[in-house]
Amino acid sequence: MDANSGKAPEPVTTTRGADASLTRLLVARALAIRHDALPADVRTVARDCLVDWLGCTFAALDEPVSGIVDALAREEGGHAQATVLGRAWRGTMAQAALVNGTMSHALDYDDVNLTVPGHMSAAILPALLALAEQRGRAPADVIAAFVAGYEFACAIGALVEPAHYANGFHATGTIGCLGAAVACAHLAGLSPVQACHAVGVAATQAAGLKAMFGSMAKPLHAGLASQAGLRAVLLAEKGFIGRTDILECRQGYAAVHGQDFHVDLATSPPASGFHILNNLFKFHAACYSTHSTIEAIVALRAAHGITADQVSRIDVVAGEGCSICNIQEPATALEAKFSLRATAAFAILGIDTGSLRTWGRVSDPSVAAMLAKVGVRLVPGMSLSDSTVTIVHGGASSTLTYDCGVPIEDKAAQSEKVFAKFRAIAQPALGEAGVADVLALMASFDGQPDLQGLMRRCAAPGGNP
Amino acid sequence: MDANSGKAPEPVTTTRGADASLTRLLVARALAIRHDALPADVRTVARDCLVDWLGCTFAALDEPVSGIVDALAREEGGHAQATVLGRAWRGTMAQAALVNGTMSHALDYDDVNLTVPGHMSAAILPALLALAEQRGRAPADVIAAFVAGYEFACAIGALVEPAHYANGFHATGTIGCLGAAVACAHLAGLSPVQACHAVGVAATQAAGLKAMFGSMAKPLHAGLASQAGLRAVLLAEKGFIGRTDILECRQGYAAVHGQDFHVDLATSPPASGFHILNNLFKFHAACYSTHSTIEAIVALRAAHGITADQVSRIDVVAGEGCSICNIQEPATALEAKFSLRATAAFAILGIDTGSLRTWGRVSDPSVAAMLAKVGVRLVPGMSLSDSTVTIVHGGASSTLTYDCGVPIEDKAAQSEKVFAKFRAIAQPALGEAGVADVLALMASFDGQPDLQGLMRRCAAPGGNP
Repeated sequence: MDANSGKAPEPVTTTRGADASLTRLLVARALAIRHDALPADVRTVARDCLVDWLGCTFAALDEPVSGIVDALAREEGGHAQATVLGRAWRGTMAQAALVNGTMSHALDYDDVNLTVPGHMSAAILPALLALAEQRGRAPADVIAAFVAGYEFACAIGALVEPAHYANGFHATGTIGCLGAAVACAHLAGLSPVQACHAVGVAATQAAGLKAMFGSMAKPLHAGLASQAGLRAVLLAEKGFIGRTDILECRQGYAAVHGQDFHVDLATSPPASGFHILNNLFKFHAACYSTHSTIEAIVALRAAHGITADQVSRIDVVAGEGCSICNIQEPATALEAKFSLRATAAFAILGIDTGSLRTWGRVSDPSVAAMLAKVGVRLVPGMSLSDSTVTIVHGGASSTLTYDCGVPIEDKAAQSEKVFAKFRAIAQPALGEAGVADVLALMASFDGQPDLQGLMRRCAAPGGNP
Repeated sequence: MDANSGKAPEPVTTTRGADASLTRLLVARALAIRHDALPADVRTVARDCLVDWLGCTFAALDEPVSGIVDALAREEGGHAQATVLGRAWRGTMAQAALVNGTMSHALDYDDVNLTVPGHMSAAILPALLALAEQRGRAPADVIAAFVAGYEFACAIGALVEPAHYANGFHATGTIGCLGAAVACAHLAGLSPVQACHAVGVAATQAAGLKAMFGSMAKPLHAGLASQAGLRAVLLAEKGFIGRTDILECRQGYAAVHGQDFHVDLATSPPASGFHILNNLFKFHAACYSTHSTIEAIVALRAAHGITADQVSRIDVVAGEGCSICNIQEPATALEAKFSLRATAAFAILGIDTGSLRTWGRVSDPSVAAMLAKVGVRLVPGMSLSDSTVTIVHGGASSTLTYDCGVPIEDKAAQSEKVFAKFRAIAQPALGEAGVADVLALMASFDGQPDLQGLMRRCAAPGGNP
């Protein structure tokens, strides 16, 4: 009873027959990750997560929500412990985690992992970078700690999904805080027991409602999750005692948030060995469910040398769920991003769908003419991430099915796309020189001695105050 | 889908046939509260909540969790906006909310409302006082805003309990954040729409697992809830947009946290007109389920002039749920607090059960001798808050049933008890003179021009650094 004065601790019990040591097992695995033992592809993807996260953050500097959280933090003052990206001030670690985390998810253009499902870079990296900067840690340490947090978060997703998300919890917040805690615990060198306490303190802060989608609160969840994970680690480091079995205990994290509890899935890494190899980057600034259509058209164009003037018809077949992005007569930039017809037209015309600034071209005459040639059919049973596109061009007909839920196999090719995206979206904030500087640093990130060069370049670039 | 780039806002829909305007209705009612229209008893209880909260906070200055959160905040630095009680520094509003909130609930000796059920003073007052101090607001404004937040929180309890709490959510955290938000919104003068957005941002931060009871995280929940409510208001004040119907919307706050949704109860104030009149203060530093036994014995002693040496037998009959406080052979101070036999012996011997420092006397010979005369019987069907005590004394037998879940009717008499408790538990930190100063200020709190006198006296009293 809450009204008790003090409370005799309950015995540690498990829920639904779970392994009592699940929290400890998953934490131990995460803490055991070492940079020099990571496969090259894993290090590459982790580095690319950071590149993509930086780009998404710089692209969101002028978003209204960015200004609001920035003002909140500035009014508090505090020691200059960590860089707030694109601003002329440094803040406390907690402030940097909140502000950078919120900015990085403000455009919803950051990467995602479908096992969570959520945006783990946005939740983990803000806290981790702040802590690493304050402690003077090396980039290789950041990469290893990020992978530790990322893998832990995905294990939690495997444990509690799909019920957790289906019930209304925004996993970017509610699972992201655990990923941030484990990443920071790894970097801070917490003992396994301390790290379990940090996971407990993060779990009891887990919050974020999916009902807030479509508002400023969605990106705020990422910043709050990052801050909560950081706080959990700083408290555990000082001797804070929570409990070390929060995932599996009676009325613990898993039990309270949903009906699913898959210990087998949580303790089994994916076939590739690392969840991070399944990280999905977003290369088009439109609804994710339009991405397969865009990719299919780009691939067909390249394979068959199709030019826009040859096209007499484009037929798109996608799942029923794509009704969320099937605006038939898009008139505005926002509507274009939620229109399979418009995104198909942009793709065949070679308009940059990765840019945040091209979507107003939906009213160009060339787009309007192409829109008349695009037909969409939504069918039951097809996945939200699948699309089958048929292009009729100069008498021929070419068809391709694409699934944007499948990670790109060639991680070097993926890097090129991530770097290209960064150039496109960070340029307005960083300028050409700034983009080149940051990407040069990121190309050899793991081998650099510290974060100072990067953070100095990221502090107040270009024309931003 | 979380992975969407942007998201078309959903139409505002209601869940389970609820009134779509529930959030707006409850917020409007809370914002309409005016100090000069409050009944005298309501003002008295609100003032006493503050007195009790201050006492519980001063009593907890040396608790380990207090030192940990204090260190966390100090390492951040920041503007001196608000007083951290009993310390030699002032912090940001957010820091004061977190540290004071955690300290005030650290001993679990603070007041409670069973409609929530939870500790609303601990969740609301830290944020509210910090904001009032920073804005230079008057004590009467604080009282009105506190009542607004308290009533709102209890309405939410009526809406979502008992399922919310039974599901594992610690309502002090998960409902307390809403109370803190509305109290701060009232004080800050937010518009009704802004206040609804603040409620939305608070609701999407609602966190705290009951599984953490018995650890340092339980009091941390109070501090975090207070900080979250404050943050929600500061963000809404700057134009942050969430949604204005979070309580009742599809997969909103109520739906995600439990199965109960009692619009009728939430919109019907209690018979007395104000939930705060049902506030329960704790006057004994022991498990709440021992309080009725102690009160019954104190009342029987007074009514019949019973002295300890006349007593040949004490029989306690309580509910089965009191097995949590039925340690038969208590040997330590902590065990004594969870022993109906020990608390009964203390009560008949006239040992101060309100003190935090007397419980080691369980091994005194006089207590040991009295313990042999106390018998406890737990029976099914009796409430956790009921106790029937029979004292056999000098050939006579006197019986009384007491229910500590019933608020004290005579609020002036309750005030005397609250002030006496403050004297006992704040004295080690404040000293005699400090106690007298603070209580003199609190006796005429509503009429004072500002908070400065009180806060100066509370900053670093007595021997505390």
